[in-house]
Parts: sequence; structure tokens; C-alpha cells
Amino acid sequence: MRAYLSDSLSKSVTRNFIMAVILFNAVILGLETSSSVMARMGGLIVALDMLCLAIFILELAAKMYVQRARFFRDGWNVFDFVIIGISLTPAGAGLSVLRALRILRLLRVVSVVPSLRRVVEAFIMALPGMASVFLLTGIIFYIGAVIATRLYGPAFPEWFGTLGASLYTLFQVMTLESWSMGIVRPVMEAHPMAWLFFIPFILSTAFAVMNLVVGLIVNSMQDAHHEEENAATDSYRDDITARLDRIEALLERKAEGGNGS
Amino acid sequence: MRAYLSDSLSKSVTRNFIMAVILFNAVILGLETSSSVMARMGGLIVALDMLCLAIFILELAAKMYVQRARFFRDGWNVFDFVIIGISLTPAGAGLSVLRALRILRLLRVVSVVPSLRRVVEAFIMALPGMASVFLLTGIIFYIGAVIATRLYGPAFPEWFGTLGASLYTLFQVMTLESWSMGIVRPVMEAHPMAWLFFIPFILSTAFAVMNLVVGLIVNSMQDAHHEEENAATDSYRDDITARLDRIEALLERKAEGGNGS
Amino acid sequence: MRAYLSDSLSKSVTRNFIMAVILFNAVILGLETSSSVMARMGGLIVALDMLCLAIFILELAAKMYVQRARFFRDGWNVFDFVIIGISLTPAGAGLSVLRALRILRLLRVVSVVPSLRRVVEAFIMALPGMASVFLLTGIIFYIGAVIATRLYGPAFPEWFGTLGASLYTLFQVMTLESWSMGIVRPVMEAHPMAWLFFIPFILSTAFAVMNLVVGLIVNSMQDAHHEEENAATDSYRDDITARLDRIEALLERKAEGGNGS
Amino acid sequence: MRAYLSDSLSKSVTRNFIMAVILFNAVILGLETSSSVMARMGGLIVALDMLCLAIFILELAAKMYVQRARFFRDGWNVFDFVIIGISLTPAGAGLSVLRALRILRLLRVVSVVPSLRRVVEAFIMALPGMASVFLLTGIIFYIGAVIATRLYGPAFPEWFGTLGASLYTLFQVMTLESWSMGIVRPVMEAHPMAWLFFIPFILSTAFAVMNLVVGLIVNSMQDAHHEEENAATDSYRDDITARLDRIEALLERKAEGGNGS
Repeated sequence: MRAYLSDSLSKSVTRNFIMAVILFNAVILGLETSSSVMARMGGLIVALDMLCLAIFILELAAKMYVQRARFFRDGWNVFDFVIIGISLTPAGAGLSVLRALRILRLLRVVSVVPSLRRVVEAFIMALPGMASVFLLTGIIFYIGAVIATRLYGPAFPEWFGTLGASLYTLFQVMTLESWSMGIVRPVMEAHPMAWLFFIPFILSTAFAVMNLVVGLIVNSMQDAHHEEENAATDSYRDDITARLDRIEALLERKAEGGNGS
Repeated sequence: MRAYLSDSLSKSVTRNFIMAVILFNAVILGLETSSSVMARMGGLIVALDMLCLAIFILELAAKMYVQRARFFRDGWNVFDFVIIGISLTPAGAGLSVLRALRILRLLRVVSVVPSLRRVVEAFIMALPGMASVFLLTGIIFYIGAVIATRLYGPAFPEWFGTLGASLYTLFQVMTLESWSMGIVRPVMEAHPMAWLFFIPFILSTAFAVMNLVVGLIVNSMQDAHHEEENAATDSYRDDITARLDRIEALLERKAEGGNGS
Repeated sequence: MRAYLSDSLSKSVTRNFIMAVILFNAVILGLETSSSVMARMGGLIVALDMLCLAIFILELAAKMYVQRARFFRDGWNVFDFVIIGISLTPAGAGLSVLRALRILRLLRVVSVVPSLRRVVEAFIMALPGMASVFLLTGIIFYIGAVIATRLYGPAFPEWFGTLGASLYTLFQVMTLESWSMGIVRPVMEAHPMAWLFFIPFILSTAFAVMNLVVGLIVNSMQDAHHEEENAATDSYRDDITARLDRIEALLERKAEGGNGS
Repeated sequence: MRAYLSDSLSKSVTRNFIMAVILFNAVILGLETSSSVMARMGGLIVALDMLCLAIFILELAAKMYVQRARFFRDGWNVFDFVIIGISLTPAGAGLSVLRALRILRLLRVVSVVPSLRRVVEAFIMALPGMASVFLLTGIIFYIGAVIATRLYGPAFPEWFGTLGASLYTLFQVMTLESWSMGIVRPVMEAHPMAWLFFIPFILSTAFAVMNLVVGLIVNSMQDAHHEEENAATDSYRDDITARLDRIEALLERKAEGGNGS
């Protein structure tokens, strides 16, 4: 039984079927946003969504039965499990939010299509190398939020009233959206020296973002190089070293032979 | 007759003439946008535009006559054919749009000038390598649009009323245009936790765009490297291997000769 | 006399003095913008500016006397000549503009400091390689301006009334400044399908800009590589080839000697 | 005594303790921004902040006692000294600003965590190489500010009234924030040709920023290459040269031996 299930799950027919169900479910959930479609055939759409969910649960259950303890060791399985779990959470206060999050099931495409998996895995692999830049950005943001809350919070409670509000406003400033006309010019009317805080903040976050981008480029370039080119270089170098070893051995044998004669 | 036409079409005089007609037509269509110019000599301008179109049709007909079935195999021919076709569509409801699109004929410059052709071809060649990133961006957008329509559609029908409206608004948010002061701050007044949706959306699309740019840079760099430098490296390596072969052969021959004597 | 002048001009004392005059003149022209400073000591400032101009004219005259016909062959001399010329243009209608442009003299710092010269020269050298991307951007802009003027000009004369107005508005759209909330959303109220024009326009100009940046990076990288690393590689390869030649010659001589004996 | 202190300071226990105090202090200063928290237990928070400061002063004093004259030679020590010094400045007019700046102590994390130190040091190392681009940007900004103040200052005193106001507005224009709808369109109503100033300004600062980014990328790439790959290449090349030396020596010895016999 387990062997049969394991076999069926790894067949490409099964994978294509699951893929089709994911895409069909995404269309169904897209149609659900249209009130005119829901008015005409809402019952059918809800039923089809239920059917898709049932298929996902069956597939997940089959996988768990086959893989047992190994199931949760694969990050992508955990990912699928959480996404399906969201749909099964008993409805309560956040019902409408949970129902909206069902569309996250479309993310399962990422775990099914290998090329998408690689993009996301490459990104996750690159994260540790960028940890220090993220940490630095976090420090800059926290310092900026504390200073802004203390200095501008009393006069502009909507933007800088709490640490959270300041963090949000500083994120907006970092993206350069309305930073001057919307935020800094009004603040400067009350605190004329406010540019002394905001312009260094913009420059230092821009520096951090630039560092991230440069780090990502340099990383990708080296990876790309190492795989193809360096393999060729290494095999060439090994070959040359072996040939020179042989030549030296031949010469030394003859030198000995010559001396010996 | 066909040989003569084929000969004429490939002459540089013909190409330069077609080029001149394209540029002249672009100027004519530019002048057509000025109502004062049209008031004074609208008749002349319309006539000249007709003349240019006639020349384009003749050239296209000649090319089709010469190349026959091969004509539609070249993407640039299809491109020219569609652009000319737009000008000949019978006028109806979308007349003013079709008349405006005549200026797309200027794009024929791209199919005539080799260096522009290369830029566009390089871009088209790079597309398949970026397919997975585009697909990922598409998935993020679709998920974002479904969630935003369900959660914020009822309160903000202008921005998130339909899937289409949400997709447009999310594109605006991705470009960071007025994302906070224009969209997210008003939304947060009704849904205080909306930043939990929009900030991850901004970060994940920024990640996708960064991936695209990095991919393009890495690709271009490798192409540039492979052509020049690697050719030199390969020929050097072949040369060294051949020389070592010769040296080894000499040594072995002597070793045998030495043993044989 | 000419030899003496030529000698003086190339002395580092002279260059430093001219440099100091340029910077001093920049400060003077900066002070001129302050009405309170001008009220107190406007006469002195105007006189000092006259003095700086006199020194520049003398230096330029000396250079022209020394270099004669060669003077205009050096682009940086022409640059200095035009900048000084602006200050001497007889005042007329555009007087205030011409007086404001005197600060362009500060650009002479670029022609005096070698490292700044290199940055600008590197940029100018990179331009021809990017010509096709610029040309493509120009074509996209012209097509966009003609279409926008025809379609949206009648309803929005301020933004798209003339080709010039459209070009300016499209430049604003390309920089993503208020493109949606400021321009496209209002346009879409009159022309609901306007996004079909603006979003492709944004994507194609973004593609052109990306191409420019990537081209610049790839170019700079190759230049940087070619100079240092490749020199080392080439000398190593030449050395190895020469050594193998010697070894082969030795072996062949012995092989002949062996045969000959 | 000094040896004992020096020993204690370099222990990882001490470093981790200082690290913990820095983070705890950051949390304390974050809580201080909340008026509800301060109302309930403000006294405790102020006391804990005092305690943290005391620990920092003790650590700094111990370091100064141990390292003496060498103390100020390390940039990171000076950095710590200035940050602690800010907290001890006698309160006066700028009291609230100084109290807000206490959160800068969190920056000490950078001097304690090696990976953050490296990011900042790499940035500082890259600065001299970018000096000429910064200088060029400074020149462009100063020229732009003088021209804008003279031409647009009288009509728009809020934006271009003084050199300082113009510099700030031009920085906003460089970041592209509301440059057109907010600044240039209003200016163009009074000065229709203002785009002749602003568009070249935007293009030239964009060129400067692009140069900075490209420079940073090229620099990082070369550093990354030089360290790993070139070490392998160099050791391989040295090895090959040594082997060929040995082979040549063997052949020459035999050639001599052959001739000698």
C-alpha cells in the first residue's frame, strides 16, 4: 500500500494533475472576488473550491503517510502543510482575512515547479551572507525610530507618535515616497533642523540597500563563474600537472639509467 | 523579374531610401499633432503620409513577392507586416486610436538599423532565462490582487474594487509611486493592519525586480567574457597540451630507443 | 616670450593659483545670492568677481598665444573658452540668466583636477557604446509623445497639448514621479484604457534604463579586468611557451645527436 | 592590575556582557518613547538607563587605563568615546536633542560585532576611490543651487530663497520626489524654460549616482576575485614554473653529460 502510494505520488501524471488543480483553484478564487459572478453561480464556485481543498488534503495526507517522520524535514512540505492548514483554521474573528489568505495556495506552484523552487532557494541561500547588512539596516531603523519618536512625536503624532508609527514613516522615507513634500517639509516648519536627521537617514539606508544589491550581484557572479569555468580550469590544471609528472619521471629514470650505465 | 527585385531590395541605396522615408514619415506624423500646422497645410501633410504608406506597402509587397513562403519565417518581416497592417485596418469605432498608432511605423527603424536590432534581439534572447522570475512576479501579483480585492475592495472600490483595479494599484505600489501617502495611509485608517499586507508585498516585488536586474547583469557579463577571453584561453590551452604531447612522444621514443640499443 | 609664458603656465604654482581663483570666485558668486550680504558689501563682491574674470581672461589669452592653432584641438580648452565667453556676452534680454550662468566657471575645476577629468572622460568614452540604447529610448519617447498628444491632448492640454508638453510629461512618467495618482488615474477617468499605453511605456523605458546601467557595469568591469589581470596572464603564458620551446629544442637536438652518433 | 584588566577586557564573557548591556539599553531607550510605560514605571527605566551608562563609562575607563596612548589610535575606540561623551554633555538648550541621541549608543553594536565592523570598514575603504565622484556631485549641486537661487529664488522663496533652501530642494529633485508635480511644474508657470535647468540637473546627478553604484560593484567584484581565485592561480603558476625549471635542469645536465662523454 505505502509503496503503491509512494509510486503514484512521484509519477509525473500526479504532479501535473496537482499543478492543474492549483491553477484551477487560483482561477476559482479569482472569480470569487467578482460579486456579479458570485451572484449568478456562487454555489458552484464554493463547491469547486471545496473540491480543490479536498484534493490538496488527500495529497498531503498521502505524502505524510508515505514519508512519515521524514515529511517535516523537507522545508517545502512544511510550506505546503502551513498553506493548507490556513484553510482549515476554524473561522472566528479574522474570518474574512483567513478566507482571503486561501489564495496563498497558489504559492504551492513554487514548490511544484523546479525552476521557481530554484529562484526561491537561491534567495534563501543568499540570505545568510546578507545577514550583517540586514542587521545594520535594522539598527539604523531602530535608532532612527527612537530619535524621531522623541523629537517629532509630540508635534506629529500621526507620523511619529509611537515607535511603530515612526518605523512605518521611516520605511516610507527610505522608499523616497513623498519624503520631502509629504513629511520633511511639514516637519521642518516646526523643527527647522529636521533635515539634519532625515538626509543622513536617507543616505545611510540608501548605502545599506546599495550594499545589499552589490552583495547579491557579486555573489551571483561568483557562483556563475565557479560552476562552469572553474571546472574547466581545474581539469586542465590537473591534466598539465599529471603530464609534467610523467615527463619528469621519464627524464629522471633516464638520468639514473644514464648514470647507471 | 524576381532576381532583379531581390537585387534592388538588398542594395544599400534602397535601404537608405526606406530609412529616409521612415524618418520623413515620423516628422510628418509629428507635425500632424499640431493643430496650427494642420490648419495651414493639412492637405499636404495627409497626402505626404499617404505617399509614405504607399512606399511602405510597395516595399513590403516586393519583399513578399521575392521571399514568398520564407517571408513570414523572419520575425522582423512579421513585425513590419503587422505595423503596416495597422494603417490599413478599415476605420470604425477605434478610428482615432488606429490613426494614432500609425506612428508605430517609426519602430521599423529598429528592423532596419542593425545595432538597434541587436539590442532588441539581445533583450528577447534574455527573456527565457528570466521566465521563472517573471512567473514568480506574476504569482505574487495575482495573489496580492485577490487578497487586496477581498480585504480592501468593499471600502476602497476605486483602488481595489475589481481584480483589474487591484492589479493596477499594486503595480503603482510596486513602482513606489504615492504608495504610502496616496494608498496605504488612507487604507490603514479603515484597516489598521494593512501594512502587514503592503510592506511584504513591496519587499517581495523589490526582491523580484532585483533578481531580474542581477540576472541580466550576470548574463551580460558572462557573454562578454566568454567571447573574447575564453577564446584566447582555449587556444592557449590547446597549444600547451599539443606541445606536451610532442615532448612526451620524444622522450618515450628515446626511452624505447635507449632500451632498444 | 612665448617660451617663458608656456613655462609659467605649466608650472604647478600657476595651476594651483588658477584653482584657488576658481574656488574663490565660486564663493563670491555664492555670496552674491544672499541679498543681506549684497546690501552690506555688494560693491566689493562685484569688484572681486570682475578681478577673477580678468584673471581667467588673461590665463586664457596666454594659453591661446602659446598654443595658437593647437588651442582649439583640445576639448578642455574649448570648454574653458565657452565658459569664459558666456561671461562676456553683451547683456540684453536674457541678462539675468547669463549672470546666473557665470557660476558655470566652477566647472573649470573639472578641467584642472586630473581625477575629475578622468571621470568625465570615462563617461564621454562610454557614450558611443550606449548610442543604440539612447537612440532606442529616443524612438520610444517620440512614438509615445505622438500617440499621447493625439489621444490625450484634447482632454488634457496642460500635460499632452503639444509634442513638447507630452515629451516632458512622459519624462516625468519615466522617472515614476506621480505617474499614477498625478497623471494616469485622472487620464483614465476620461480614457479608461489609458493604462494600455502608460504601463507598456513605463516597462519599455525601464528596460532601456536597465540596459544602460548593465552596459555601463559590464564595460567598466571588462576595462578593470583587462588592465591588471590579463597583463599578468599574458606574460605568464609567453613565459611558459618560451620554456616549452626550449625544452623541445633540447630534446630534438639530443634526439638528432642520438641518431647521429 | 593593568595586565589583569587587559585580560578581563579581551575575554569573550566580557564582550558578551557588554553586548547584552548595549541591547538592554536599546530596549530601555525604546520603552522611554512610550508615555504610558513612562507613566507607570518611569523611575525604574531612568535608573536602568543610568546603570547602563555607568557600565559603559567603566568599560571605557578600563580600556583607556589599559591601552593609554594607543587608545585614540583605533578609530572604533574614538567612535565609542564620542558616543558615550554625548550622554555626558551638560544639558542646556539642546537638552531634548541630546537625550534623544543617547540611542546612538546602539551603534556600539557595530564596534563589537566583527561582521558589522567589516561592512562599515569596507564602506570606509571604498570612500577614497569614490572621492572624485562625490566631488563632482558636490560641484553639480553647488552650481545648481547658485543658478536656482538667482533665477527662481525671487518667485519661490520657500524652495529657492537661499543657497541652503536650494540645496535641500535640489536634493529632493535628485531623489525624484515630487520633482515635477511638486516643484518644476509650478516653477514652469512663472519660468516656462525652467525644464532646461531641471532636466539636465536630474540627468547629471543620475549619471553621478550611477557612476557611484557601478564603481562600488566593480570594486567589490575585483576584491572578491583577487582573494580566492587569484591565490589558486598564482600557486598553480608557481608550481608549473618550478616543474619546468626542474625539467630544463635535468635536460641540460644530460645534454652536458652527453657532450662530456
